[in-house]
Amino acid sequence: MTTLNVQPSPVRLQAVVAPGQPEPTPALDALYRGFERELLVPLWTEIGDLMPAAPRSKAVPHLWRWDRLVDLAGQAGRIVPVGRGGERRAIALANPALGGKPYATPTLWAAIQYLMPGEDAPEHRHSQHAFRFVVEGEGVWTVVNGDPVRMSRGDFLPQAGGNWHAHHNAATEPMAWIDGLDIPFSYYTESQFFEAGRMHIDASEMTTPERSRSERLWGHPGLRPLSQPEAPVATPLLAYRWVDTDRALADQLALEAEGHAGATLGNGHAAVRFTNPSNGRDVLPTLRTEMHRVRAGASTRVRREVGSSVYQVFDGTGQITVGEHQWRVSRGDLFVVPSWQRFSAHADGGGALDLFRFGDAPIFEALHTFREEVEPA
Amino acid sequence: MTTLNVQPSPVRLQAVVAPGQPEPTPALDALYRGFERELLVPLWTEIGDLMPAAPRSKAVPHLWRWDRLVDLAGQAGRIVPVGRGGERRAIALANPALGGKPYATPTLWAAIQYLMPGEDAPEHRHSQHAFRFVVEGEGVWTVVNGDPVRMSRGDFLPQAGGNWHAHHNAATEPMAWIDGLDIPFSYYTESQFFEAGRMHIDASEMTTPERSRSERLWGHPGLRPLSQPEAPVATPLLAYRWVDTDRALADQLALEAEGHAGATLGNGHAAVRFTNPSNGRDVLPTLRTEMHRVRAGASTRVRREVGSSVYQVFDGTGQITVGEHQWRVSRGDLFVVPSWQRFSAHADGGGALDLFRFGDAPIFEALHTFREEVEPA
Amino acid sequence: MTTLNVQPSPVRLQAVVAPGQPEPTPALDALYRGFERELLVPLWTEIGDLMPAAPRSKAVPHLWRWDRLVDLAGQAGRIVPVGRGGERRAIALANPALGGKPYATPTLWAAIQYLMPGEDAPEHRHSQHAFRFVVEGEGVWTVVNGDPVRMSRGDFLPQAGGNWHAHHNAATEPMAWIDGLDIPFSYYTESQFFEAGRMHIDASEMTTPERSRSERLWGHPGLRPLSQPEAPVATPLLAYRWVDTDRALADQLALEAEGHAGATLGNGHAAVRFTNPSNGRDVLPTLRTEMHRVRAGASTRVRREVGSSVYQVFDGTGQITVGEHQWRVSRGDLFVVPSWQRFSAHADGGGALDLFRFGDAPIFEALHTFREEVEPA
Amino acid sequence: MTTLNVQPSPVRLQAVVAPGQPEPTPALDALYRGFERELLVPLWTEIGDLMPAAPRSKAVPHLWRWDRLVDLAGQAGRIVPVGRGGERRAIALANPALGGKPYATPTLWAAIQYLMPGEDAPEHRHSQHAFRFVVEGEGVWTVVNGDPVRMSRGDFLPQAGGNWHAHHNAATEPMAWIDGLDIPFSYYTESQFFEAGRMHIDASEMTTPERSRSERLWGHPGLRPLSQPEAPVATPLLAYRWVDTDRALADQLALEAEGHAGATLGNGHAAVRFTNPSNGRDVLPTLRTEMHRVRAGASTRVRREVGSSVYQVFDGTGQITVGEHQWRVSRGDLFVVPSWQRFSAHADGGGALDLFRFGDAPIFEALHTFREEVEPA
Repeated sequence: MTTLNVQPSPVRLQAVVAPGQPEPTPALDALYRGFERELLVPLWTEIGDLMPAAPRSKAVPHLWRWDRLVDLAGQAGRIVPVGRGGERRAIALANPALGGKPYATPTLWAAIQYLMPGEDAPEHRHSQHAFRFVVEGEGVWTVVNGDPVRMSRGDFLPQAGGNWHAHHNAATEPMAWIDGLDIPFSYYTESQFFEAGRMHIDASEMTTPERSRSERLWGHPGLRPLSQPEAPVATPLLAYRWVDTDRALADQLALEAEGHAGATLGNGHAAVRFTNPSNGRDVLPTLRTEMHRVRAGASTRVRREVGSSVYQVFDGTGQITVGEHQWRVSRGDLFVVPSWQRFSAHADGGGALDLFRFGDAPIFEALHTFREEVEPA
Repeated sequence: MTTLNVQPSPVRLQAVVAPGQPEPTPALDALYRGFERELLVPLWTEIGDLMPAAPRSKAVPHLWRWDRLVDLAGQAGRIVPVGRGGERRAIALANPALGGKPYATPTLWAAIQYLMPGEDAPEHRHSQHAFRFVVEGEGVWTVVNGDPVRMSRGDFLPQAGGNWHAHHNAATEPMAWIDGLDIPFSYYTESQFFEAGRMHIDASEMTTPERSRSERLWGHPGLRPLSQPEAPVATPLLAYRWVDTDRALADQLALEAEGHAGATLGNGHAAVRFTNPSNGRDVLPTLRTEMHRVRAGASTRVRREVGSSVYQVFDGTGQITVGEHQWRVSRGDLFVVPSWQRFSAHADGGGALDLFRFGDAPIFEALHTFREEVEPA
Repeated sequence: MTTLNVQPSPVRLQAVVAPGQPEPTPALDALYRGFERELLVPLWTEIGDLMPAAPRSKAVPHLWRWDRLVDLAGQAGRIVPVGRGGERRAIALANPALGGKPYATPTLWAAIQYLMPGEDAPEHRHSQHAFRFVVEGEGVWTVVNGDPVRMSRGDFLPQAGGNWHAHHNAATEPMAWIDGLDIPFSYYTESQFFEAGRMHIDASEMTTPERSRSERLWGHPGLRPLSQPEAPVATPLLAYRWVDTDRALADQLALEAEGHAGATLGNGHAAVRFTNPSNGRDVLPTLRTEMHRVRAGASTRVRREVGSSVYQVFDGTGQITVGEHQWRVSRGDLFVVPSWQRFSAHADGGGALDLFRFGDAPIFEALHTFREEVEPA
Repeated sequence: MTTLNVQPSPVRLQAVVAPGQPEPTPALDALYRGFERELLVPLWTEIGDLMPAAPRSKAVPHLWRWDRLVDLAGQAGRIVPVGRGGERRAIALANPALGGKPYATPTLWAAIQYLMPGEDAPEHRHSQHAFRFVVEGEGVWTVVNGDPVRMSRGDFLPQAGGNWHAHHNAATEPMAWIDGLDIPFSYYTESQFFEAGRMHIDASEMTTPERSRSERLWGHPGLRPLSQPEAPVATPLLAYRWVDTDRALADQLALEAEGHAGATLGNGHAAVRFTNPSNGRDVLPTLRTEMHRVRAGASTRVRREVGSSVYQVFDGTGQITVGEHQWRVSRGDLFVVPSWQRFSAHADGGGALDLFRFGDAPIFEALHTFREEVEPA
């Protein structure tokens, strides 16, 4: 039985001369030593940092170049095996302001995953929500609860928490894609569970159907299978194919060009959100995922939101502005937009700029703390 | 315009000999140097910490004695003024395992607040949700959007984000109470806003009605004012009085004694949750608040939950077990129960043990990741 | 096996000369005979009635005097026994425009129920939602799932579908009260179930607690028993006592008098809705129930709504206007407000006018077809 | 000012000798005369009809042959003009047990609508929810809020209340289709509004896009346009095309054949529900709409539900059983299934039987009174 902590206190308080601070005196010093002994920290020394007028992101805007990621992932493919324990050959973006942790933002994990020909990533399941997005390549299957799901360029594959999943590269070439998860949020809130499954998928799961069973059940617009009466909190549809996403974006821009301005978000900026067909909400309870298309030569409006995002350039070239940062970007490049920082994108004249985005907005919407500001065009 | 970060990398990777880790070789070392340059961290070195089989709380169970808090708060009352900038004479519990930060748990702020006779704590408002709970004392008003709310022993006073509020001590004695907020969660998720209001409340707000306007509108059981058609996401009722709470708990135990076992949580364990009368949900979107009563000589069942809690002993004496820790407790003592750690309480034979509790469970329920385990009695 | 109906057709169609109607000709006549044979009716002959510009209520405004109801109920008490089969000595209001059916409005049943000293009304349960409201008298218990619930003047007792219930008169005098149900709606939509229970309640259920078990569990403002984690669709609170309702109304008028206009519905018009404490919604999924108080000499604003209501005068005297009808009313009088007809109430100068109201608005809100218009004061 | 109704009473009560009824005596007779005078009806004479043990449908099962409907609609096309006032050349099914009213069931309207080449049905809007379903033909446009929507065999076109709509036949042949609405329910509940619009659509609305604007915005599986942030209570998607519906049904049967039994409702019975892509619920708040496919030689399980349905045979031949009725059916035939009556369908051996169905189940689900029973296979 323990009674009270007798270790050296982790609390360190220093009386300072500053506006809003009590005057440094021996009495104040004695008080602060008492606080340290009892593991107490006053609000008045912390409030400036803890309760700012508006969100001050710890993460900073940053860009990762796709070619460098692929190069390093390829090196890892040659020397780092995939197997139980390490589980995945996934390499995560580490925001330069988050102390070397594998966090793109305080809440989001973003990684490149890489699988050599014939390799398996072993089956596991976890409470963290995940997805894959494929900027290039072909030939990998994700097997979700026994349902093999093909992965091709432009496909978005959500992976709700709690589902068994493994990956298999059935092709003759390595393949890379990105993984997004809510690992940092789950870790911070101490709410995560993990379980290991089979080392290898069955032979029958290595076949290559064009459409997964989930797509055959749930992938028809506005049509719900009566055999599935419940609305699952995370999407039962395991693949959102590029052919559909591309067409939806093209339709919006065509409608805008025909004079129906309300079809897009503004002049030349089309966007779709990936949603759970059983309830129309975000595919995953903690992650919002979208595809944006900015028409050649067009710009998005400047926007800032509570919560952070990671973007990957799917196609085209253009210029991105996040807070004080600006980058020229092209296919595969990844960048982060921290909370409450202004974001805009401009597409070069040669063609549309397609941006895949994921973020943590559903957390704030669920808790009624989401806020956004959009500047006039 | 910046292009790419050229600072020394915060990422530090070390090849080690360990199960699930690739063998340290010059090639691996070169790969890790590449990761550092590009601000990348592999999953395989982190997964053991990041994705455990079940939540491993960073916070540790800890107990703070009320008499020591009150003593230090009284010292602060004599030497630290209350005013704009510091805003409140609030002194927060700093969990010994959270690096000296004023966090009781990763998500929860718990503080003792102290006001000298005649003092005002200036008006402000913020997006963080807050409440006050009064373990002893009398004489302070919280003025919420112009509505003065009396604070007396046993009263629970929720303070939803976005409402202007100030405190005033109208008595001739100092008064202490506890504040609970979601400051650490708001800070971590970078979703908070703050605004300063009036330095002093109006003379008319220093009067002392028995019941606040909010109680007169919303404090009648099952009766909703037709003038308030919307269901606000946080409670419109600004005070939950001890006379009601006490009676509800007594009723449950009496029903149990009459043979209606379903009225309580088990043998001699009564409990109520403070709820928003407009929708029946938790009073605040991020904070769950409850009062528990354990009959003299009785024990609660052992329970663990995703998410963390802070308890304050309102009355009685008994023994608390949290994980490997055990404490004897009495009036005013505060302790924390970290995520997924087992908790139970035992009341001494002399009288009931009353425990006020607050926690972060609504976050997990909103995101569909709440989980709990209750051991058989 | 049947194939097609060969009875004389119930369809009768007549060609007429009227705007929007096809010209009567032998061909049209032949067509209409064909429609009759095949059990068909064209829209063009019916649209004027079926699809009006706004609701045209079939029911008419009507008033029933309480003294006459009580007198007839008393006669019935002397000559009509209560027992299995007839189930209740309940006598329903029959709107004069609804063909002699026991419907106050197309959707609502309103009846006076009457129980002689010592009498039992046998136990049953049904899917129809019900409530009792007591305008005068004392001494009857409703036993709901074994929980005896006292009935006194001003008390409102909801009775959600599916609960076993019986009544017992433990007093030495007869007692009358009103029952409200959704019988006509359930009957029309063919969605009702009924089951008979015990002929007599147990001796233990004839005791007379001040508060029912449901009130001891659920009757504390904003406090939810943790032993009841689910939010039932109909209220778990079986009695809403007059002392609470009266105080809530008095508080609203006092707040208004202190200058807080938003506390009431307008000048001198206070009102509360009886709500399910587990979710803040109407006590019953199909019935809205409210108590209104109009200050002496004051008037409500003129209002019309989709859906119908029945009112009972609880106290005071005044003047009621419904559509083209006007009545002077006093304690116990009942009247109906058909759909989309204008309603207002004026209280005489001598004292407040208290009106109990029930209606079918939750049906329209659930189906998103509710609409209302309130005229400026 | 009126006081009390002095017309001859519509109430007629007769004392009878029957179980559960009071004995006929002069006193009872006098009581009943008193009830008549005061417009009162006792429960004990009505309860047998009003509160049955389970729903007893007033409507009866009935079948209408498509060829006879088309023949009569064609005759009407030649002699009954379409225009303002009559509004539509729609001919409704009149259930033989509902007194000649144009009600297929107590809540549902089902009609054949017919438009001659070049004809316009004038624009209007109403609160009643509607849809079109096309069993054969081509060439008509419905213009919804200015958006022309093509209608072809197998297409389902929901028409939420409140939207302006007109029809235009751009083909050289007449065209027939069915309309379904909640007219009887809206009429009974006295909750309907109607407004006339333009006599003729604009020339620009007579063009013939393959896909409507609504389909281009909302018709992509799982993809939501960011320009449409709200989830409308009725579907924003104005056409559900046969190519999608057919493929969804075929996929279910193929999955079942591959061994995934959970993909269908049972042996050879596939079914989809038409849903609002913004929230996953029924397309219309009061109407459920589905397409069922029974594999050649297969049968559905026997099922009964609270609420009524209308079916139309889209393709194939087979045998239908509703309560005590049995019919052999083929393309276009319509039949009704009253509340709580048993239904099953058997497909002939030559090919699948495709059944379009609509019903009122969302009403009961919204009010928490839905109930169903499915017999074991």
